[in-house]
Amino acid sequence: MLYMAEMQVNLPPDMPADVAAKLKADEKALAQKLQHEGKWQHLWRVAGRYANVSIFDVADHDELHNILSSLPLFPYMDVRVTALARHPSAI
Amino acid sequence: MLYMAEMQVNLPPDMPADVAAKLKADEKALAQKLQHEGKWQHLWRVAGRYANVSIFDVADHDELHNILSSLPLFPYMDVRVTALARHPSAI
Amino acid sequence: MLYMAEMQVNLPPDMPADVAAKLKADEKALAQKLQHEGKWQHLWRVAGRYANVSIFDVADHDELHNILSSLPLFPYMDVRVTALARHPSAI
Amino acid sequence: MLYMAEMQVNLPPDMPADVAAKLKADEKALAQKLQHEGKWQHLWRVAGRYANVSIFDVADHDELHNILSSLPLFPYMDVRVTALARHPSAI
Amino acid sequence: MLYMAEMQVNLPPDMPADVAAKLKADEKALAQKLQHEGKWQHLWRVAGRYANVSIFDVADHDELHNILSSLPLFPYMDVRVTALARHPSAI
Amino acid sequence: MLYMAEMQVNLPPDMPADVAAKLKADEKALAQKLQHEGKWQHLWRVAGRYANVSIFDVADHDELHNILSSLPLFPYMDVRVTALARHPSAI
Amino acid sequence: MLYMAEMQVNLPPDMPADVAAKLKADEKALAQKLQHEGKWQHLWRVAGRYANVSIFDVADHDELHNILSSLPLFPYMDVRVTALARHPSAI
Amino acid sequence: MLYMAEMQVNLPPDMPADVAAKLKADEKALAQKLQHEGKWQHLWRVAGRYANVSIFDVADHDELHNILSSLPLFPYMDVRVTALARHPSAI
Amino acid sequence: MLYMAEMQVNLPPDMPADVAAKLKADEKALAQKLQHEGKWQHLWRVAGRYANVSIFDVADHDELHNILSSLPLFPYMDVRVTALARHPSAI
Amino acid sequence: MLYMAEMQVNLPPDMPADVAAKLKADEKALAQKLQHEGKWQHLWRVAGRYANVSIFDVADHDELHNILSSLPLFPYMDVRVTALARHPSAI
Repeated sequence: MLYMAEMQVNLPPDMPADVAAKLKADEKALAQKLQHEGKWQHLWRVAGRYANVSIFDVADHDELHNILSSLPLFPYMDVRVTALARHPSAI
Repeated sequence: MLYMAEMQVNLPPDMPADVAAKLKADEKALAQKLQHEGKWQHLWRVAGRYANVSIFDVADHDELHNILSSLPLFPYMDVRVTALARHPSAI
Repeated sequence: MLYMAEMQVNLPPDMPADVAAKLKADEKALAQKLQHEGKWQHLWRVAGRYANVSIFDVADHDELHNILSSLPLFPYMDVRVTALARHPSAI
Repeated sequence: MLYMAEMQVNLPPDMPADVAAKLKADEKALAQKLQHEGKWQHLWRVAGRYANVSIFDVADHDELHNILSSLPLFPYMDVRVTALARHPSAI
Repeated sequence: MLYMAEMQVNLPPDMPADVAAKLKADEKALAQKLQHEGKWQHLWRVAGRYANVSIFDVADHDELHNILSSLPLFPYMDVRVTALARHPSAI
Repeated sequence: MLYMAEMQVNLPPDMPADVAAKLKADEKALAQKLQHEGKWQHLWRVAGRYANVSIFDVADHDELHNILSSLPLFPYMDVRVTALARHPSAI
Repeated sequence: MLYMAEMQVNLPPDMPADVAAKLKADEKALAQKLQHEGKWQHLWRVAGRYANVSIFDVADHDELHNILSSLPLFPYMDVRVTALARHPSAI
Repeated sequence: MLYMAEMQVNLPPDMPADVAAKLKADEKALAQKLQHEGKWQHLWRVAGRYANVSIFDVADHDELHNILSSLPLFPYMDVRVTALARHPSAI
Repeated sequence: MLYMAEMQVNLPPDMPADVAAKLKADEKALAQKLQHEGKWQHLWRVAGRYANVSIFDVADHDELHNILSSLPLFPYMDVRVTALARHPSAI
Repeated sequence: MLYMAEMQVNLPPDMPADVAAKLKADEKALAQKLQHEGKWQHLWRVAGRYANVSIFDVADHDELHNILSSLPLFPYMDVRVTALARHPSAI
């Protein structure tokens, strides 16, 4: 099932650079693993913001929540989820 | 270039059924043509709403606007556009 | 899978009484059928508003959208859907 | 009487892990006790957020407020309460 | 139990004067009856708006909703309800 | 003259317990004094929130502001004031 | 006592020109009368909108509400009132 | 002096085509005249919406309001004005 | 030219008392100097909030911004500016 | 392609003066370099706020995001981007 997740990341500007770098590297590794597995289907940057628009294809709400809440940056994120159904005009 | 367009459709409930059906059929035909051309890459229904989340891949802002404003349902839509850049963690 | 749907109904005050009564009777019949089938698990009135909070247990997003968009009052509703996952403290 | 409480938890990301763990364990113990007593009827996780949707069945507003304000995580929560009345179409 | 109800009235400006006058007279009669019964404890005008702030003292959510939804102006109102608990500093 | 004041209190969760207790005790003492004087006519807790709805009966805007800004918790409050006029249907 | 009233006027674009002209002329006459009486102290146009910012000096909330609700354009207005107290730095 | 005006146009979808065409032609003629005069410095379409972002260079607030309120589409517009000062980093 | 500036002051509650007192004294001195010069025409306290509504009469946007950004409390303020034009009904 | 970026800067008031000065100087240098290159076409101060309205002319979304996210003040900014298309009435 498909879900859109809009994630806004709010890192404190005074976070030590190495802590931030470690968080981002871990986030990237997990994001790429999930993309390779086909669960994180699309990952786009919102131009001008430290934010992304993502499309997930997972089994159910629980799997989506487990993935999102396991992201290293999750404690710094504001996430909005939208359930995406099939559109009658989609080919 | 990629854009997300979130379209909320607000048809007046008292629109005659045949007028609404004609509008929707024209909308569907154009939406499918644009999908076949690769310009309208994704079209998802927002569950529970007469709304969609769409991803467009077009040359520039002008082409995006020309497409959106030519949709038969455009006069009844509220559209929000988000410019999508490449995400550094995207594979 | 569980979903919360918050539905706000906006009937035009000048709708003829018999038209409104027919819509509401049809809505009630379908709502009760869906409750008997176990798909519409809870249906509560928001005190002071022509609105409800509902819990649905359906197979997926598509079934949810099909149900909601088939409601006789759907053209008059503003609906917000929230995907509900299992809570780790739920018994 | 039934109430919906929507709780958003905002723990500071720099809270020491043991402090957070203790808070969450205490919260869980109390939440489960209240569920066993029948006062906290439903507890669902909002997919993608550190938030929940809950249904309480308590004697009155005072009991609801006493329960909510006694939660260990209450100082970190933003809570919205909705009074739920019987819906005429509920079975 | 106490509830605050904030009611915003949106009468269409082109409603015939006699229809509006009848609605308002019926509303006033019912509001005064409910005040005499002690259910509608306070009724204040929001200065500058066709709106009021009201305090109700009723048995439960159902009685509150029945009263509010029976008001002649209810179809033209936007109502927000707040459950009021006892304050520890109230005398 | 009557005013509604809606006060949301935002105490930092890491405020030392004795500092918070002293602030709350002082707030309570002043709130009760003002209630005995008839200036703070009603004080209700918003169920589920560290917030209240209050009705003041004071001489004018200046007296209202002096009272509110002298509250020990004022630096931690977000306050919205509504001027309440006589309602033509009030008895 | 001083009040700020922010008035947004929403005339239906299809109102007959003579009806609109009559309303505006009546509004202007009353606004000027109230300015000459000293009750409507300031009246400014919000640049770019059919809206104004006004300062009233009246006896109390009731007089303010009586004035505002007697304006010919009141049924088409959305009005927000702010109670203005003396500022300690005002000369 | 420079002002940004953000204009959202809300034409009723059932406006007769010739009426809409006349309005738009008149709007265009006036917009182009004002651009040639140097008063309407920039006029951009917001992609995906019947809206624009405009920059005006006029003598003062009154001239700005006179221009905006004289636009043929003004009765159908929602306009937000922002006063633009010189930026210390502008070249 | 006239401008309304609505200023909300957000001082951190843990600012040392002498620092806050110094800031406020400097703010007051400058505010009174600007009032005496006729540039800060009105300064009102929003009842119940650490906020004000002010009317400035200055040469242009740049002078307004220079004044506002030079206020000692500016780093703690959220300011909204509204350009005020002459109202056709003003006397 | 043209983009409007609205940037609100939120520097913590307790940032050391030399750190803030360095940030602002670096920001200014980069902003002026980008203006000289023609990429940052307009840069205006929002009167009364530590905010700006900017127009960028860049190749695509990626270049826009790279520029914005490289600004020294970016970690302290809230940025909203609007894609600007050609307006049919623009000369």
